[in-house]
Amino acid sequence: MSELVLRDATAEDLPAILAMLAKDTIPPQREADPGDRRYLAAFEAIDCDPNQRLIAAELDGRVVGTMQLSFLPGLSFRGSWRGLIEAVRIANDLRGQRFGEQMILWAVEQCRTRDCKLVQLTSSSARTDAHRFYARLGFVQSHVGMKLHLRD
Amino acid sequence: MSELVLRDATAEDLPAILAMLAKDTIPPQREADPGDRRYLAAFEAIDCDPNQRLIAAELDGRVVGTMQLSFLPGLSFRGSWRGLIEAVRIANDLRGQRFGEQMILWAVEQCRTRDCKLVQLTSSSARTDAHRFYARLGFVQSHVGMKLHLRD
Repeated sequence: MSELVLRDATAEDLPAILAMLAKDTIPPQREADPGDRRYLAAFEAIDCDPNQRLIAAELDGRVVGTMQLSFLPGLSFRGSWRGLIEAVRIANDLRGQRFGEQMILWAVEQCRTRDCKLVQLTSSSARTDAHRFYARLGFVQSHVGMKLHLRD
Repeated sequence: MSELVLRDATAEDLPAILAMLAKDTIPPQREADPGDRRYLAAFEAIDCDPNQRLIAAELDGRVVGTMQLSFLPGLSFRGSWRGLIEAVRIANDLRGQRFGEQMILWAVEQCRTRDCKLVQLTSSSARTDAHRFYARLGFVQSHVGMKLHLRD
């Protein structure tokens, strides 16, 4: 039985991660060539920040999932840290095998290790299956998520 | 006519900011004494991180509003940064005078200055007046916001 390995991504993982990000986004977004230097700059900004983690999920040596974890300091809840999960993706051919569940439970553990008071995420309103998935893992849909795009 | 001054908060602003955070939260949350050292530790974690800003809104020398801005690196949208607005509060006696609008428009400008592709926030599902407020400023309610509390 193959086991999902969760670890911090390296620059070598970028093509696989970018392919998953480009494929599965609502609304679809225009992405550049995976070799574009802006991706490497973004990776380096994440990699050098102890409060940002880009995660690669590996199965039998293949990168099959990704997510980004952000640890945010804040005053509320007696000065508690919060964990933020963003950009969760899993390879289409591996859906429905509970790998997503493993990823999120692992992410929650990372947030616990960082002494976060809570873990938060937003999910596209259209993705009712994702809402049910997160609700099963204990997430409560208490907020609306709003976005303002500043440029294309 | 008094003018709202928006600036980074200092440790001296903490009592006023904490009073606003404690007063106006859904659901109500237990907060500690404003002198609790956990608040100062949280302030320092924000203050020493160039990607975190705790903002004080000052009117005639009184701190009447607050919000936290986070600048998040990410791979999506060709390696774009995102701005996150959290913990927005304004003094009860100053509601309805468009100070909140000034604060958010200023926050959006800060995100623009940091070359963010988008600005995002979540708002309690119960706060339909806040949703209308943000919608008026151009924010689109495209996501649901989910939270998992890890401890009290």
